[in-house]
Amino acid sequence: MQNKRTDLAVEAREIWQEGAEKTTQLKGVEADEEKVNGFTIETVRVINKEGEESIGKPIGTYITVNLEELIKKEEGAFTRGTEAIAAQLKKIMNIGKEQSVMVVGLGNSAITPDNLGPKTIRNTMVTRHLVEKVPEYFGSFRRVSAVQSGVLGTTGIESAELIKAVADEVKPDVIIAVDALASRKMSRVCKTVQITDTGIVPGSGIGNRRATLCKQTMGIPVIAMGVPTVVDAATLAADLMETAGMGEKSPDAFGKSGREMIVTPKEIDVYIEDISKLLGYAINLALHEGLTQNDVTMFLS
Amino acid sequence: MQNKRTDLAVEAREIWQEGAEKTTQLKGVEADEEKVNGFTIETVRVINKEGEESIGKPIGTYITVNLEELIKKEEGAFTRGTEAIAAQLKKIMNIGKEQSVMVVGLGNSAITPDNLGPKTIRNTMVTRHLVEKVPEYFGSFRRVSAVQSGVLGTTGIESAELIKAVADEVKPDVIIAVDALASRKMSRVCKTVQITDTGIVPGSGIGNRRATLCKQTMGIPVIAMGVPTVVDAATLAADLMETAGMGEKSPDAFGKSGREMIVTPKEIDVYIEDISKLLGYAINLALHEGLTQNDVTMFLS
Amino acid sequence: MQNKRTDLAVEAREIWQEGAEKTTQLKGVEADEEKVNGFTIETVRVINKEGEESIGKPIGTYITVNLEELIKKEEGAFTRGTEAIAAQLKKIMNIGKEQSVMVVGLGNSAITPDNLGPKTIRNTMVTRHLVEKVPEYFGSFRRVSAVQSGVLGTTGIESAELIKAVADEVKPDVIIAVDALASRKMSRVCKTVQITDTGIVPGSGIGNRRATLCKQTMGIPVIAMGVPTVVDAATLAADLMETAGMGEKSPDAFGKSGREMIVTPKEIDVYIEDISKLLGYAINLALHEGLTQNDVTMFLS
Amino acid sequence: MQNKRTDLAVEAREIWQEGAEKTTQLKGVEADEEKVNGFTIETVRVINKEGEESIGKPIGTYITVNLEELIKKEEGAFTRGTEAIAAQLKKIMNIGKEQSVMVVGLGNSAITPDNLGPKTIRNTMVTRHLVEKVPEYFGSFRRVSAVQSGVLGTTGIESAELIKAVADEVKPDVIIAVDALASRKMSRVCKTVQITDTGIVPGSGIGNRRATLCKQTMGIPVIAMGVPTVVDAATLAADLMETAGMGEKSPDAFGKSGREMIVTPKEIDVYIEDISKLLGYAINLALHEGLTQNDVTMFLS
Repeated sequence: MQNKRTDLAVEAREIWQEGAEKTTQLKGVEADEEKVNGFTIETVRVINKEGEESIGKPIGTYITVNLEELIKKEEGAFTRGTEAIAAQLKKIMNIGKEQSVMVVGLGNSAITPDNLGPKTIRNTMVTRHLVEKVPEYFGSFRRVSAVQSGVLGTTGIESAELIKAVADEVKPDVIIAVDALASRKMSRVCKTVQITDTGIVPGSGIGNRRATLCKQTMGIPVIAMGVPTVVDAATLAADLMETAGMGEKSPDAFGKSGREMIVTPKEIDVYIEDISKLLGYAINLALHEGLTQNDVTMFLS
Repeated sequence: MQNKRTDLAVEAREIWQEGAEKTTQLKGVEADEEKVNGFTIETVRVINKEGEESIGKPIGTYITVNLEELIKKEEGAFTRGTEAIAAQLKKIMNIGKEQSVMVVGLGNSAITPDNLGPKTIRNTMVTRHLVEKVPEYFGSFRRVSAVQSGVLGTTGIESAELIKAVADEVKPDVIIAVDALASRKMSRVCKTVQITDTGIVPGSGIGNRRATLCKQTMGIPVIAMGVPTVVDAATLAADLMETAGMGEKSPDAFGKSGREMIVTPKEIDVYIEDISKLLGYAINLALHEGLTQNDVTMFLS
Repeated sequence: MQNKRTDLAVEAREIWQEGAEKTTQLKGVEADEEKVNGFTIETVRVINKEGEESIGKPIGTYITVNLEELIKKEEGAFTRGTEAIAAQLKKIMNIGKEQSVMVVGLGNSAITPDNLGPKTIRNTMVTRHLVEKVPEYFGSFRRVSAVQSGVLGTTGIESAELIKAVADEVKPDVIIAVDALASRKMSRVCKTVQITDTGIVPGSGIGNRRATLCKQTMGIPVIAMGVPTVVDAATLAADLMETAGMGEKSPDAFGKSGREMIVTPKEIDVYIEDISKLLGYAINLALHEGLTQNDVTMFLS
Repeated sequence: MQNKRTDLAVEAREIWQEGAEKTTQLKGVEADEEKVNGFTIETVRVINKEGEESIGKPIGTYITVNLEELIKKEEGAFTRGTEAIAAQLKKIMNIGKEQSVMVVGLGNSAITPDNLGPKTIRNTMVTRHLVEKVPEYFGSFRRVSAVQSGVLGTTGIESAELIKAVADEVKPDVIIAVDALASRKMSRVCKTVQITDTGIVPGSGIGNRRATLCKQTMGIPVIAMGVPTVVDAATLAADLMETAGMGEKSPDAFGKSGREMIVTPKEIDVYIEDISKLLGYAINLALHEGLTQNDVTMFLS
């Protein structure tokens, strides 16, 4: 892995391949690609320990939805995008009609590129209290709660610890955890959604690595949704060098200063606004049967 | 009470007095006033059931620090203000050196005058993780954690329920809950801090009344700090009428529309910014022995 | 007028009628009402000096689009709303294909309910530089520039003075000035758009009254678009009293304190976000021929 | 220059030196360094055409105040910092007691690291209207106005064109223009203030290069104050390579993608908040005789 920092399984696989002889086969990892609703969907499956070690990601399924097509902004692209993401989310979540869900917004809301999780839960339809208190209107909705975990530096509590405590009280059947990720390539930043059933390590993207939110630690399935919003500076430098044909280097060669800064698009504020809406709406469509785009807008306003 | 909406004990007492014959004595309630560090401190003590019923506030102590003097902005007023508030907080909290504290920011961060609690915890020194992980530097600090509760409408979870779950996990010895309040008088809005050992009903100020955070529900002492940031429109109308000598009316006479709007200062954004800093710094001074203003600034930056 | 503070001509007319014998006719003022695209449109025309004096508004046309229907949020309501407003704007503006426009956002962006103008210009398609520099793509667009005037307290320059200087340099054919207004009734706040060809006095809603932006001062037609976002507290109190059958009072009876606070909906942050988008999109549709909703979204992102 | 992007004269000089034989002397450029009030001040003077060509910066004086010392956050550091910057600003501005000043905030307020200029003018004491209208209180103050220029993409008007129009109307004697800059080195980002009498090209840091604000274009002296808030990604990569001993490359070797992203500190939101206050307060001290830190706080609140 050469310490290139990435939270995306598609990139971890790519990095392995770059390092390996072209003829070698990556054992324990399966990958395929399909086109759904105009969007390219890549699926990486890590199927055993050998796969885990090769690409440094735990056993499970990693679905990547490429948003490039969305950004071309044809008529109805937002609607098609939410539907594409919702479809993948439903597939990987695979839950019954009566099961309840807690959506968790990870990340530091005071740092723009890390504010994706907190913003996404603002676009999530929260129904738990309504289903319980006004069943005549909301009886047909799934019970959904939404919690912002904060970060260790501002709460003094590990995100996983806080979420575990709340989940033990609220007792959802599934957790959906949303977070900003780090990519190795600028071309993927803000243009890719990764959905996985392996859970997530809070602070992957911007912060420091923390205790994992996953089935083992939470006791219930944890689906993670993430979008890369930054590249770390040293990984970027290493990649720019390779692209420019200057040979291959480890990011660590660039020293500590390269790890202290983040690389992010100029318009990151706008991207976070747009993508948090996209993810929130996709979650709503995936969680509530027969919901239209318009229902979501009405509910949230 | 005539349904005049107030979260301040000093106002509840005032309202009782306005309604009563001047000669009648308010039983079960004691009040006194002193001048500390240039600030007027009013203390109301509800000492028995009779007092509770008279002024509609639970048994306990309510300290009001009048910030009017701060707003005159003489040299050093911010420092004197934090010290005055910190002194009252220490007195009412009365905790041992080793005891840990959880500071809770109540309220909806998306509504400006209700964002006081969430903003205050951003100005709170969070040390729990540091005391545990870097004892060589932080061993002398009190363990402090900080949590934003969100509101029922955006989390689907009662604030008291969420905080109880987290407190049961984190096990602080005391909770300090910070919230925006409603006052009956515009002249008190953003100019008064109430500190009480009776806990708090989240959503008093802006939202709807919810399950109480108090010693009974949390199992540990709950100190509440609040600043009125709004007046409800019907209470205002009733008070304006009385001031103008137009007789006395119940706010309910103004109908439902008077209860749907809030009355707030034009510069509420600036007030919330300033007061959250004042409260946060006061909490820091109260919780950590021998801390200077300057230490706080260094820690938080 | 009894000093009831309103910036809406429909309300000024109402107030006159309330004060007058029901049989008296309001001279110099014409009014009619129609239903367009599901929205109620009220038009008040002040046609002479007598009308000006009666209702305290200058000679000209005042169109009010009632957004109540929008708020019911049926399918497609946003689109129908922008189209209804755009149609009225085009009618009152009545400009040729080649004429250029400067959109001015009035108000103080640091005060939430006064941030309508500044936010609206962020949703306005700015094309002046593109038409000039990339005519191959943008040659068919109208030249549109957009300026935020700031307020006297933060610039030291009267809004009208600053806009006149910029307009003399940029030389638009028409100015569209967008501002937050004050209404007398809570029921109209955030639910009414007033469009007028009489220009506007910056700071009507929240600030203090300043030099007018109008044809006389700017030398070119000034169309003003405004939405009431506040009620002043004293006007509210007077109205609540009347509604409650407590007789009629002048707002001034409530003294100075009633004029220092504003009354605004709890969710004013969300309203400003939504309405600024509505106005911005309506302006875009009115200024560029054959533009679709989707084109606007693509252009702005 | 090898296309390494920097707006700092000290860096331009450095780059020249790195490219040159150590023995060569840089003609037309003088440099010295002093320690004032605990801060290192570097002054670069470009004295003729030869100097201009060597380092790619126009003839004039460039003062750099190193804030590293501030960040150590000793007692009173903020006060010492504002005084150090104010002293340099006064020296380079050199204006008479009666002369008036317009402070211009350049940059796009919607992009966090480019919001330095707009935020700084919010911390500037604006007195022009007060001196004129309330001379009994403000007669002894200098007349100061403050304008936010916006950016071409959101106004359709070149910043220099807009500011020229306003300045011709308001007729200040001097313009102080504040903007975010680009540095080549991460170690200087948010840690250096450059003050120069050569004016500024808006959009140096984040946007695209535009018409210059300088004495030639504005007709009055233009003092520019800037703080680097970003590094461009390709420059960073080139520098990381050199530091790591991988040889010297032109940033252009990294292709277009390296120019589309920005590199910025994780905590850029906090930095912008703090530095805009530092610059605003320094401007206030430099413009008004005998002003104390405390006066500034009182005026702005």
